[in-house]
Amino acid sequence: MLYFIGLGLSYETDITVRGLNAIRNCSRVYLEHYTSILMTASLEELEEFYGKKVTLADRELVESGAEEILRDADKEDVAFLVVGDVFGATTHTDLVLRAKQRNLPVEVIHNASVMNAVGSCGLQLYNFGQTISMVFFTDSWRPDSWYDKIWENRKIGLHTLVLLDIKVKEQSIENMARGRLIYEPPRYMTIAQCCEQLLEIEETRETKAYTPDTPCVAISRLGSASQSFKAGTIDELAQYDSGEPLHSLVILGRQTHELEIEYLLEFCDNREKFKQDVINDQEYFKPAAWVPPQEDDE
Amino acid sequence: MLYFIGLGLSYETDITVRGLNAIRNCSRVYLEHYTSILMTASLEELEEFYGKKVTLADRELVESGAEEILRDADKEDVAFLVVGDVFGATTHTDLVLRAKQRNLPVEVIHNASVMNAVGSCGLQLYNFGQTISMVFFTDSWRPDSWYDKIWENRKIGLHTLVLLDIKVKEQSIENMARGRLIYEPPRYMTIAQCCEQLLEIEETRETKAYTPDTPCVAISRLGSASQSFKAGTIDELAQYDSGEPLHSLVILGRQTHELEIEYLLEFCDNREKFKQDVINDQEYFKPAAWVPPQEDDE
Repeated sequence: MLYFIGLGLSYETDITVRGLNAIRNCSRVYLEHYTSILMTASLEELEEFYGKKVTLADRELVESGAEEILRDADKEDVAFLVVGDVFGATTHTDLVLRAKQRNLPVEVIHNASVMNAVGSCGLQLYNFGQTISMVFFTDSWRPDSWYDKIWENRKIGLHTLVLLDIKVKEQSIENMARGRLIYEPPRYMTIAQCCEQLLEIEETRETKAYTPDTPCVAISRLGSASQSFKAGTIDELAQYDSGEPLHSLVILGRQTHELEIEYLLEFCDNREKFKQDVINDQEYFKPAAWVPPQEDDE
Repeated sequence: MLYFIGLGLSYETDITVRGLNAIRNCSRVYLEHYTSILMTASLEELEEFYGKKVTLADRELVESGAEEILRDADKEDVAFLVVGDVFGATTHTDLVLRAKQRNLPVEVIHNASVMNAVGSCGLQLYNFGQTISMVFFTDSWRPDSWYDKIWENRKIGLHTLVLLDIKVKEQSIENMARGRLIYEPPRYMTIAQCCEQLLEIEETRETKAYTPDTPCVAISRLGSASQSFKAGTIDELAQYDSGEPLHSLVILGRQTHELEIEYLLEFCDNREKFKQDVINDQEYFKPAAWVPPQEDDE
């Protein structure tokens, strides 16, 4: 059996009991290690907790070396561990598909991921639109296709979850050119960097998918003991010191219920100002004074 | 400490190790029991697994009797268990907010929910729009505000997750009028019922948010051993026997990647027909031949 097991967000004990039981019967255990990181457990702590050796799987191993992972999964138990839930990245979906196409028995053991745990900022999950990824800008590469997606979401009043770039096991261009397997220290985008990139692209595009005064929620270290939320405008959050990684950001849509705002007020410096920012943003994005239809059920 | 603990989707062992450890130190344990059900474990099995008495919390207890749940949570450990993840329903958010406002210490232990585990149908989570709820129609009550939301999602090419109604601890109108605490057997909407209601409202509205030939994926018993997926058009799925609950449905958007379609083909009766249905739907919903911008990252 090839198990795909979500590890959840932070602690080694965030794994499910079912997931842990599965790992303990596996002959090989891989940990996907390039789309996310587990925040509060090291590889050694995981190995001790599982009582198993764990092999780190970088992008190369997953995308090119899949043979190694899939090997003998019809005869023995193999686990492929993913931080968060299993289906967060297309490469994992691809691996599941490859396994199925070879008739290897596959079992998925789900867990929390930022895609649902983001609900703990108080915004309702059913009001989120498409999710975007914000990558580190470089001098020559400043991709902004996400801008249209924010705009599409906001046109219909929806919140946008922004996933912030992480760079793990990255090579400098020089080292890559010279074929030297020397890796840069890992980098994690901060809330401030993300907000600066948002502001830059809005200045270039000028089509007002959002403004510097658009309200957002910064989410840091979701699911860990030091988890924190900060509500403020993009302009304010561009000055925010978000501390240790990992971070995500939610750009508010117009479909905000009173309960959502009430919850967010717990996370802002100036409650009256934030309330007013939300009202102004809704006004600005008229015909934005969209009245949500009465909820049929929750 | 007041713990809010997600139970995941199906098995008693879907709880996280951290969640289980927390429960075992609690003096009172409540299980929310009206927005969802745990598929493969009974109350007795849960109690035995936790080694704790578990009190079922119906809507009345959570919404009106919150005092009982919050009582003494500053002096002892209390657990409020939710099937799936904690922030699936507004009433849970409200309960967390009330606890915080009384300065009760709160800890959330997340888990998988349909909102992220739906990724196991092969559709990418970042391409989903707002989520809708489909309630049982009655002779006099056929709410259709969800129709506009599907239309909004599809206009920008996004998938729509449809959550199907469940009725637990429901009273007949007569019993309610007479104040008799007699409850109807639980009811769970099937995929066929959901699709019939979709077709009915499209016939009434006639604005073509979707057509009978729009491709969908039926998801049954997600996360359980008998989990199944079925890909087909709304018309086809209106004839589909989806078996035991619980069910959800995804209405496809135009932003379908090749990998998504390839994954869905595993779940349909006629691969060539389904591929053509997807192409036709995309054509029909022109200026629908929307070209996804190049993905910056995954």
